[in-house]
Order: sequence, then C-alpha cells, then structure tokens
Amino acid sequence: MAANIDAETLTSEVLQSWAQTPDERLRQILGSLTTHLHSFVQEVAPTIQEWDQAIDFLTKTGKTCTDVRQEFILLSDVLGVSMLVETINGQETPDATDSTVLGPFHMVESPGRALGDDISPESEGPRCVVSGRILSVDGSPIPNAVIDIWQADTKGFYDVQQPGTQSIGNGRALLRSDSDGQFHFRSVVPMYYPIPTDGPVGKLLLATARHPFRPAHIHFLVTAPGYRELTTHIFIGGSDYIDSDTVFAVKTSLVKDFRENPDPDDAAHYGVQSPFRHGHFDIVLHPEH
Amino acid sequence: MAANIDAETLTSEVLQSWAQTPDERLRQILGSLTTHLHSFVQEVAPTIQEWDQAIDFLTKTGKTCTDVRQEFILLSDVLGVSMLVETINGQETPDATDSTVLGPFHMVESPGRALGDDISPESEGPRCVVSGRILSVDGSPIPNAVIDIWQADTKGFYDVQQPGTQSIGNGRALLRSDSDGQFHFRSVVPMYYPIPTDGPVGKLLLATARHPFRPAHIHFLVTAPGYRELTTHIFIGGSDYIDSDTVFAVKTSLVKDFRENPDPDDAAHYGVQSPFRHGHFDIVLHPEH
Repeated sequence: MAANIDAETLTSEVLQSWAQTPDERLRQILGSLTTHLHSFVQEVAPTIQEWDQAIDFLTKTGKTCTDVRQEFILLSDVLGVSMLVETINGQETPDATDSTVLGPFHMVESPGRALGDDISPESEGPRCVVSGRILSVDGSPIPNAVIDIWQADTKGFYDVQQPGTQSIGNGRALLRSDSDGQFHFRSVVPMYYPIPTDGPVGKLLLATARHPFRPAHIHFLVTAPGYRELTTHIFIGGSDYIDSDTVFAVKTSLVKDFRENPDPDDAAHYGVQSPFRHGHFDIVLHPEH
Repeated sequence: MAANIDAETLTSEVLQSWAQTPDERLRQILGSLTTHLHSFVQEVAPTIQEWDQAIDFLTKTGKTCTDVRQEFILLSDVLGVSMLVETINGQETPDATDSTVLGPFHMVESPGRALGDDISPESEGPRCVVSGRILSVDGSPIPNAVIDIWQADTKGFYDVQQPGTQSIGNGRALLRSDSDGQFHFRSVVPMYYPIPTDGPVGKLLLATARHPFRPAHIHFLVTAPGYRELTTHIFIGGSDYIDSDTVFAVKTSLVKDFRENPDPDDAAHYGVQSPFRHGHFDIVLHPEH
C-alpha cells in the first residue's frame, strides 16, 4: 500500500518496489542505490530549485555525449567513481599490473599497426620509443596479446578532439605482442592536458575551483585469451600534475621515466633520430580463473 | 598529493578536491554526494561491465530527453527521489496543502483560459467540473493566484504524447482565482495511465517487474505573490492504482471523490450536460516568510 507516504516510510516503500525483480544482482544493486541515494537526499535536503538544477545538469551531461565524446564517463572520472571501480576490481589481482581508468576517449577503433610503427604519424615533435613485454603473473611471456593504445599529442589533444587537423586513428594503434611477448612502437611524448571543459563537467570543475588537468600518459587496454582484460596507463615521469590528476588515476607503479637515450646505434635500431626518449613498460596479466 | 590512491584513501582525496569550492552550499552537496556515492560503489562492488551498463543507462536517459519529454525526471520519480524532495520541502509548511511531484509532463506553457472554460476541448467523453478555492493558511481567500493545470485525457494521454491527435495545450490551462479566491473549470475526468515505457526508465520497470501505472490525477502548480509556490495533484477517488502509484506520489489528503451531481440546475449553471461529475479541491498556500 503505497498511498500517503511520508519521508520516513518512503525509502522502505521504494525498496519494497524492487522486491519482485527476477535478477538477484539487479535487485541488490537497486536496493543499495535506493538506500544510499535517499540518505544523500535526506542529508542535503535539496530545495525544489536545487533538484531542478540537478535534473538539468544530468540532462545536459547526456546531451553532451556524442559518438566521440562521453561526458558521463568524464563525470564518473572527476567524482572518483571510475577509479574506485577500477581499484575495487584490481584488488582481486594484486600480482597483475595496476589498472586505471578507461577515460572518455576510447571512442573509436584503433587502427591495426605493426610492431615498430609510428602510431602518431601526423603529430609534430621528436619521436620517442615505447617498449615492453606482456607477461603472465608467473613471468612467462604472453605472445599474440592484443594491445590497444591511445594517446594525446605533444599539445595535449586526441585525434577525436581535432577533426580536420588530426585524422581519426592518429595517436592510436592495435598491436600484437611477438612470440616472446614483446612489443614496441614509435610515437611522440604526449603532453599533460585538460579534460574537456566546454561541457557540464567542465563547468562543475570551474564552479569548484578544481583544475581540469591530467598528467601526461599513454592508455593501454590489453587482452589475451585466458587472461583478464587490463585497462591501464603509462604516466610520463616528471609530467606536470602527476600529483593532482583531476581524475585521481595515478598509481606510482605506472609512472615511468622516459629517459633520453644518446646511443646512435639504438636510434638506428628503432628507426628514430638520435638522441631519443625511451619508455619501458612491462604489463602483467592475471589468468582468467 | 593525489598519486597512488587506493580504495581506502580515494574517497577522502575526492572530498579534499572540493575544499576550495567558493559556494558553501555547493561544497556541502558535493561532499555528501561523494560520501554516499562512494559508499554505494563500495557496497555493490560493480564489475567493469556493470559500470559500463550504468554509464550507458545514464547516457540513454539523457538522449531520451526532448523538448516535450524529461526522462531524468521520470527516473527521479520511479526511484522515489522526486517525492522525497517534495516531502522534505513540504515539512516546512504543514498547514499548507500537501505537495506532490511535478512529473515529466510540465514541458510546455499552458494556455491562458477564463474561469469556467473547458480546458480539454479536444478530448472525448462527458464533461466534469472541478471547483475550489485558493486560500491562505489562515483561511483567507487569495485572489488573482495563477493556477497552472495539466492533465491526461480519458484514455490516459497528455497532449505532448499525441502530436497530430491532440494540439499542444489541450488538457492544460492557466487560470486566475477570482476576487474570492475561487476557481472552476470544465474538463474530462482523466484516466490512469502508464508513464512512458519506451525509454530507459520503462525498461528498468520491465526488468524489475514493476507496473508503470499512475492513478488518475490532475496536476496543479499554484503561485501567488507573497506565497510559496505549490506543486500538487488532485487524485480521482476510486481510480485504479491509487494504492500503488509507480512514482509514490499519492497522499490521502489529495484524493477527492468526483461524485455524480444529478441536479439539472447545477449542470446549467456550469454549462455541462446533466448529470455530471464534480470534484472540489481547496488549495492552501503558505506565506513566503
């Protein structure tokens, strides 16, 4: 009997409304959501105008999403929710490489490239080299792993942010590890960058006097049969904002120095001009079961 | 220092990130949101796939909003949040008429009409009469109050749901109370109806085996200088679903019988066919201060 509900009985009425949900997990999630959401509303006691503003904020966040922009992921990121979900899931696999947020820019399919290719052919600036190995938790190499890579350019922009300037796929690659689990590619060292500030999430950061910057990083999403998928970054050691990432995604295990290598033979080996900066990042996957 | 955050320290880092917010109320709201949202995430420990589904659900909810449809209000409604906010705000004015949810259909401006007009001229079915007074908490009449009214038709549809069948403004009116605070209008008795089920919120109700129905009602939003705005309904006594409104909005004080009046003189007075159904609803506003 749901008539004549007051603030005290409303939460239990809503909880009761989920009781017939066939899927047990969905019932659990909606029950927890109802409890915590109602606690939040009770605690802040929003005015009708504030509730209106919240509805408007959520609606604008949805409307800002496009094929190449995901404002709700951005919102989840700046609220620390994305990182919390990653961290909770990562606790099950402590011996694997730390995971971190997917971010809002994994919106287009990366182009297949060969090991050693330049993945940022349209980006200005000196080439760097990134190398590493895909390993299992026991140290054995994982050959033929699919390594999805995406990064900003030397000015801090992703391809999807600069239609007409960058083609879709610049700064992206799908590589496969070789028979020894190894991979390497040429690129540019990305710059730190602001998350998009022209939408509702940017306005939120402005209203809260938070800076919108992320330290320089390269995204990795690695999959291999029999292993758990891993979403992570390599952060460029020494980047600005490494101590105040606006999406809370930095783990010290993921920060790698991109040291300058002065050896001309190494430069010739990788096909880059000497000297060049070189980052190395081994990625450890956890078996699926 | 926000690097190397784990699940234990993340929430406090996010709370700390709001510390420089100039507006104290916004800082309070974001702090409470962060605490309760992180508690929810910790409690359900979503998989990455579940987080993905949540992002997708919110995005689709935003995309479903149009000029004449508000899916986020609908979501707030079925989660009981709208009613909780109304109830919390109504606690400050216990002597005023109970408030209830705005709902998602207050999306277009109601047409100005004169007292006694038929507000549903395009709707089929016998005419009813709705009358009442706008009063202050001390019982004194409030003249010239603006009474915004919107309702579904005898089949349960609002104008905005039937482009080509109903013109925008059918079932809506902006009236003004007369010098004695009185109002009356002709209309049709609305039917119970399902909230829109073709969007993400409808899919949620389907997945949780909840029915989508609201008992029959007429919306009122009343404003008068010097008084608090009041958003409420009059529920049609005896309607189906009066005990299980899917948005939890029924208060027994708002349920009114629409009794049949057999008096031909009364019918002539109101300009309707005899017999006719008549609902009466006095609305009490609370002074602004």
